[in-house]
Amino acid sequence: MALYVKKFGGTSVGSVDRIEAVADSLKAARDAGDDVVVVVSAMSGETNRLIELAQAVTDEPAPREMDVLVSTGEQVTIALLAMALLKRGIDARSYTGSQVRITTDSAHTKARIQNIDQHNMREDLDAGRVVVVAGFQGMDEQGHITTLGRGGSDTTAVALAAALKADECHIYTDVDGVYTTDPRIVDSARRLSTITFEEMLEMASLGSKVLQIRAVEFAGKYNVPVRVLSSFKQGPGTLITFDDEDDMEKPVVSGIAFNRDEAKLTVVGVTDIPGCASRILKPVSDAGIEVDMILQNVGSDNRTDFTFTVHRNDYRQSLELLQALGSELDVRAVQGDEHIAKVSIVGVGMRSHAGVASRMFDALSAEGINIQMISTSEIKISVVINEKYLELAVRTLHSAFELDQVEAREE
Amino acid sequence: MALYVKKFGGTSVGSVDRIEAVADSLKAARDAGDDVVVVVSAMSGETNRLIELAQAVTDEPAPREMDVLVSTGEQVTIALLAMALLKRGIDARSYTGSQVRITTDSAHTKARIQNIDQHNMREDLDAGRVVVVAGFQGMDEQGHITTLGRGGSDTTAVALAAALKADECHIYTDVDGVYTTDPRIVDSARRLSTITFEEMLEMASLGSKVLQIRAVEFAGKYNVPVRVLSSFKQGPGTLITFDDEDDMEKPVVSGIAFNRDEAKLTVVGVTDIPGCASRILKPVSDAGIEVDMILQNVGSDNRTDFTFTVHRNDYRQSLELLQALGSELDVRAVQGDEHIAKVSIVGVGMRSHAGVASRMFDALSAEGINIQMISTSEIKISVVINEKYLELAVRTLHSAFELDQVEAREE
Repeated sequence: MALYVKKFGGTSVGSVDRIEAVADSLKAARDAGDDVVVVVSAMSGETNRLIELAQAVTDEPAPREMDVLVSTGEQVTIALLAMALLKRGIDARSYTGSQVRITTDSAHTKARIQNIDQHNMREDLDAGRVVVVAGFQGMDEQGHITTLGRGGSDTTAVALAAALKADECHIYTDVDGVYTTDPRIVDSARRLSTITFEEMLEMASLGSKVLQIRAVEFAGKYNVPVRVLSSFKQGPGTLITFDDEDDMEKPVVSGIAFNRDEAKLTVVGVTDIPGCASRILKPVSDAGIEVDMILQNVGSDNRTDFTFTVHRNDYRQSLELLQALGSELDVRAVQGDEHIAKVSIVGVGMRSHAGVASRMFDALSAEGINIQMISTSEIKISVVINEKYLELAVRTLHSAFELDQVEAREE
Repeated sequence: MALYVKKFGGTSVGSVDRIEAVADSLKAARDAGDDVVVVVSAMSGETNRLIELAQAVTDEPAPREMDVLVSTGEQVTIALLAMALLKRGIDARSYTGSQVRITTDSAHTKARIQNIDQHNMREDLDAGRVVVVAGFQGMDEQGHITTLGRGGSDTTAVALAAALKADECHIYTDVDGVYTTDPRIVDSARRLSTITFEEMLEMASLGSKVLQIRAVEFAGKYNVPVRVLSSFKQGPGTLITFDDEDDMEKPVVSGIAFNRDEAKLTVVGVTDIPGCASRILKPVSDAGIEVDMILQNVGSDNRTDFTFTVHRNDYRQSLELLQALGSELDVRAVQGDEHIAKVSIVGVGMRSHAGVASRMFDALSAEGINIQMISTSEIKISVVINEKYLELAVRTLHSAFELDQVEAREE
């Protein structure tokens, strides 16, 4: 008899029918003799409805009151799911984040979990009940309602699994696991039966939006085994592991991630003196714009080119900030390009294999794809290319690293 | 500087615009230097929407989960109202019933308030904040969310006023006070500036649905001065008083209440033996049907007629139950009438004035209105008449007791 914490997101509980389907799957788990704590999000659309109500009242809703408001979304779902379980003869009780004593700091709308009192839940589990918990929310030490920010339900689930020392934390999504790359782009993309925690972090941050980064970090910190599963079809999903010991047996590259949400900005011919990079980036970061890749080449004539990428939504504003700066600093030109894509290969196997980068660049070059920027980390190599080559690049790399044949990682 | 607890119902907070209007009125109270605790209901329609969601899941929603579900309705309103106050520069904080520690028994969906911890609220009031509390809800001693049943927001407000020893509890409704009778029926109906607690109880139970009965009882028990006011227009409203000392100065009758929700059932010619009344009523009450008036005349030939009234919605079922019983008992006939109305005169002044009943019956008789049933209490006389005479009867009694001239009760 195992204890599982299972999390279902907004789409999985988006209607009464979907909630009934979740109840069916929980009944199957109970019938198999397992103990279950289930974490749910607000029904899809509900959080947006509540935010629109707040925006109808004021342009700047107080964060404390925003949390009181949006936390009702999950509260509706937990009650409906508990009712659906009781209807099936499965004893169940629903709890808000406050009730289950998920204590957070007081950073409203983006609070961080500090502590979970597992006493109540344990009592219910011992009594044979399914415990239904509202994701995404908690309370601070003064008893004020807090929320963890969007996607926080994943973090709630992982945190509960850690507190209860659950056997596994199951995250149900609209995909049936983590793939070597997006199957919509590469037909031969394959589900990975396991992926390491570090790889998952890189895959998540690069746009494979299966799991929230904070939840993955949390899982890593507390060593919680997390399995990504489909809400809609049966299957073993993908297990996220934390043991790097068998690196040698793994393929060099586990997956290809990509992202077409970025834009590139270049300051051409800037005088290469100490502090010039920070002078260029300061107005951008002061405007609250997040910078992803940064590249500065060795220059000549005491001048250099400085390039960075931002989210495409921040492109126009960033360009204006740089143009204003360009007239202050001595630069030859300010250039930008919205039509770029970032493609990354990810794999812990890279650590012990040489020549991965050159294999990547060769494969792209053989297809005539020009590489505009390169950035690397220990288990990832990213390149920026012209957006129009994105699909071709992903397919090329997928076969270059033999990801259509990842038998070795299947269980 | 006074402390007021102010309660706004679902219609008064039924839209963002209405919530803004409530915030304006609370700002006026703060600007006048008063401390304010405000209790709000769910936005009108919201509770029904939630109930429909539950009914889509199951025919028999668990009461505990029903409370988790519907309590979100008020939680949305408190957040929006606090936002609207903050936008106006009025410091405010919202609290759910659980947060403000309104402790109830564990009778889910119809819980009764047992205790209120006024500590948090007092701290906020001392800090100059408006305290916004979700009506209709609390928690039991185990921390489970409870609700007080429909209309419970009035009770929340009165209970908070009692706990905080507020100067007055203001109940905002869609009428600007308690009237001598319904102004839609009698043009010359007048607002009463005061009404006694007992009169209000009789008026409320007779269909003047201004205040919930339980709230009025609560106010009487803890001696909370309650004022009924309009959400939509300025005015002093009607103050509910608890001092019966100046009965003599008051007019004999304070108001005319009426009710056309009832139906009448008569068992004709039942053998008049001890226990026959309870044998007739038992199947009706076993079916959970509430009986209002009961009348049994002195009989002849050892037989009597037994008449009672029920809510019109329960008429068909009651008739079937009696017909089934009629074949068991020895009765001459079972009759019923759905087309009746109950008209009542109410007033603490009746106690000290003789001849009130005959004045009532004379006035009705002069208009040719036949009285089918009569029931009396210390401060009320009710008659059942044919429904078609309802408006005529109310107008006739309103002028017979000179209610269009109640100057004496104006402040």
